[in-house]
Amino acid sequence: MLPFDIVEYQNRLSKTKQRMAESGIEVLLITDPANMNYLTGYDAWSFYVHQMLIVIIDEPQPIWVGRYQDANGAKATTWIYDDNVIAYPDYYVQSSIYHPMDFVAEILKQIGHGNRYTGVEMDNYYFSAKAYERLTRNLPNAKFKDGGLLVNYVRIIKSNQELEYMERAAEIADKAMYEGANSIRSGIRECDVAANIYYHMVSGTEKYGGDYPAIVPLLPAGENTGAPHLTWSDRKFKEGESVIIELAGCYKRYHVPLARTVSIGKPSDQLQKIKPVVIEGLNEVLDGVKPGMTCGDVENIWRSSLKKHGIEKEARLGYSVGLNYPPDWGEHTASIRMGDSTVLQPNMTFHLIPALWFDDYGIEISETFRVTESGCLTFSNYPRDLIIQEPFDMNRQGGRIS
Amino acid sequence: MLPFDIVEYQNRLSKTKQRMAESGIEVLLITDPANMNYLTGYDAWSFYVHQMLIVIIDEPQPIWVGRYQDANGAKATTWIYDDNVIAYPDYYVQSSIYHPMDFVAEILKQIGHGNRYTGVEMDNYYFSAKAYERLTRNLPNAKFKDGGLLVNYVRIIKSNQELEYMERAAEIADKAMYEGANSIRSGIRECDVAANIYYHMVSGTEKYGGDYPAIVPLLPAGENTGAPHLTWSDRKFKEGESVIIELAGCYKRYHVPLARTVSIGKPSDQLQKIKPVVIEGLNEVLDGVKPGMTCGDVENIWRSSLKKHGIEKEARLGYSVGLNYPPDWGEHTASIRMGDSTVLQPNMTFHLIPALWFDDYGIEISETFRVTESGCLTFSNYPRDLIIQEPFDMNRQGGRIS
Repeated sequence: MLPFDIVEYQNRLSKTKQRMAESGIEVLLITDPANMNYLTGYDAWSFYVHQMLIVIIDEPQPIWVGRYQDANGAKATTWIYDDNVIAYPDYYVQSSIYHPMDFVAEILKQIGHGNRYTGVEMDNYYFSAKAYERLTRNLPNAKFKDGGLLVNYVRIIKSNQELEYMERAAEIADKAMYEGANSIRSGIRECDVAANIYYHMVSGTEKYGGDYPAIVPLLPAGENTGAPHLTWSDRKFKEGESVIIELAGCYKRYHVPLARTVSIGKPSDQLQKIKPVVIEGLNEVLDGVKPGMTCGDVENIWRSSLKKHGIEKEARLGYSVGLNYPPDWGEHTASIRMGDSTVLQPNMTFHLIPALWFDDYGIEISETFRVTESGCLTFSNYPRDLIIQEPFDMNRQGGRIS
Repeated sequence: MLPFDIVEYQNRLSKTKQRMAESGIEVLLITDPANMNYLTGYDAWSFYVHQMLIVIIDEPQPIWVGRYQDANGAKATTWIYDDNVIAYPDYYVQSSIYHPMDFVAEILKQIGHGNRYTGVEMDNYYFSAKAYERLTRNLPNAKFKDGGLLVNYVRIIKSNQELEYMERAAEIADKAMYEGANSIRSGIRECDVAANIYYHMVSGTEKYGGDYPAIVPLLPAGENTGAPHLTWSDRKFKEGESVIIELAGCYKRYHVPLARTVSIGKPSDQLQKIKPVVIEGLNEVLDGVKPGMTCGDVENIWRSSLKKHGIEKEARLGYSVGLNYPPDWGEHTASIRMGDSTVLQPNMTFHLIPALWFDDYGIEISETFRVTESGCLTFSNYPRDLIIQEPFDMNRQGGRIS
C-alpha cells in the first residue's frame, strides 16, 4: 500500500530530526500536507480541516492528529502505529467555540511535551493565524520557533524512487499536453479542452494511473495569455489566437509541470518574434546547469540570453518541484532567481518556466529537469517548440509541431 | 465579462461595510479567495501566493493587492478601477527575506489607514500565522480584530442570480454523477472513473461550461468506504464492492455537491440494511426543513430518525455551501449539527450529507437544497437511492437505479 519502502520513510524522519536538532527544535508541528505525506505516507483530501503531524525529537514515531472521520484513512495510508493516530471529535470542525489546536495543545501537555522548543510552519497555507494564536495561548510554557520549510528542505533532493515517480508523472504530462493541444480548434470551448486535459491527467497511462495535480490546468487564450493564472471559461477559441497550456502530470502526488504555447493557425508576428528568443534562452539554461552552481547563477544565464535581444524581465524563472498538494506544486524552497544562493546538487528537481508575459500576449515553454552529476536531464519528451494547430479539424488527427 | 451585475457587487460591498460597522472594523483585510471573488469578481488560480482585498469603510472601492503577474487578471475580472489594483514585485514571492504583508502594511500606511481598527480573517487557509505576524509587526498602531467569516455570513443568503448559477451547477453534478456511476465496472481502474467524472464536471453541459470544483471527486471503494477522504488510485474495482461518489457540479465557482453510493453487483447485507435508514432519514429532514428553524433543529430530525433504528452518529450532517475555491466548498458558517443556532432563512443553501461511516464500510446519499418561503427544494434531480451497477458491461448502456 505504501508508495515507498519503510526504510525510506525512516530515513526522511531521521534527516528531519537532524535538522530539528540543528535548529533547536524539539517538537515539530507539521501542517503542510506534503510534509505529512513525506514523513508518513498520509494521503487524503482532508487538509481542509485542521490536522497535524507531531514529530518529537526523542520519540521513535510521529503522531498524527486529525478529524475522527479521517483516522481510518490515516491508519490505512501511513506506516505509523494505530496508537499514534489520534482523532478529535467532529464538534471541533469549523466551530466558533472549539478549535482543533486546543485539542493538539491538550495532547502535547498530556504526553509531557507542552513545554519544549516547538517548531511550527509559520507561512504554510494550512497553519492559520488563529491556529498559531490558539496553540501559543494553550501552551504558555512552550518556546515557539519558525520551523517553516524545515521538512521542505529535506524534500529538495529526490531519492531514486521519487525520481521514478516523476518519470511516470512526465509520461502523464506529455500525454495530457498532446491530447489537450490537439483538441484546441477554432470554435471549441475552453472548458472542453480543459476537460480533455483533466481526463488524461487523471486517467494517466495504461501502466500508471494519474493523480490530481496541485494546480488546475491553466489555459489562458488570446488577450488573456498576458494574465497567466486565469482559468478556463466556456468561451470558444478563435482562429489566430494563441493559447498557453500549463499543466502537470502527477503520479502518487509527484508532479512534473509542463507548459507549451499553441497557436491556432498562423502565429502572430509578436509570437513568431518572441518564440526563438524563449527557446534559445531555455536551451542555454539547460546546457548551462551544473551541480555546484547557485540558483542565482542559473537565472543569470537566462538573463544574459534575454539581454542579447534587449529584453529584461523580473519574474522568477523557476522553482523546486515534486511532491505536493493544492494550492501549489512548487516546494517553496529554492527559486531560480537573482540572489538565490541555493547550491545545485544532483537529484534536485526544478520547473524551469521562462515565461514572457506582456500586456496583451504571452508565451510559455517550460521544462522540468533534474540535476545530474554533470549537468541536467529534462523529464518530458515533448518537443520544445511553439505548437501550431490547424484551426479546423479536417478529419485529421494530431497537431503539427512547428 | 462579470458574472453579476455591478449593482449586485455594490450591494454585497454595502452589506459587508454594515457588518464591519457593527463589528467595529474600519479596514477589512480579506484573504479568502471566495470573499475576494464575491466582492469584486476576481477569479484566478493565484491564491497560492499572498494576496489581499482591502475594504476601507469610508472609501467607495476596495483595493486589490497581489503579485505583479496577476494584476492583469485582476484588471480583467473585477469591476474595480485599474488604479485600485496594486501589484507587488516578484521578489516578494516565497522569499525568506521579503513578505507580501510587508508590502500590504506599507500601502496601508501610505494611504493613511495604518492606524485603524483592522479586521483580518484569522482562520482562513490563505492567512498564515506569518502573514499575521508580519502585519502586526509592521502596523504597530493598528488595532487588530478577528474579521473571519464576516463576508462569509453575507454570502449565506443567495441572490436569484446565484441560485440560477447553482441550478446550472446541479445540472453539471447530475451529468457527472451519471457518467461516473455508469463507468464503474469490475476490472475498471478507479483513476479511469475519476477521469470520466472530471471530464464531465469540467466540460459541463452543452449550454453551460463547467468550472473546477473546490474538492476533487472522492470515490472510496470497498473497505475504504469507511475512510471518506481518500482519493482514487489505479486499483481496479471488484464485483461485490461498493463505491461512494462525492462530487460537485461547479458553475462560475458556485457549487452543488452530490453524493451517491454505487454497488457493483448485488449489494452486501450491510448496505441493504443501512440504505433505507439513510433514505428515510434524508426524506424526513427534507420534509421537515422550514425557515425559522435552527440548524440544530434540522439535525435533530436526522438524529431522531436514526434513533428509531438504534443508530447514533456524531458527525456533522451538513453545511452552508455555494461560492468557493479549494480546498473546501463549504462556507464555514452554518453547520447542520447539534447546537448550531443559525436560523434558516429563504435562499440559504446547504449540502445535506447524512453519511454513515463504519470501520470497514460506509454509505453516502446527499442532497444540496435551498430554503424556500415554506420549506426547501433540492437542486439535483438524481434519483435518491443506492445505485446498483452491473459488474460487467454486456454492451449495455447505463446503470440501473434500484
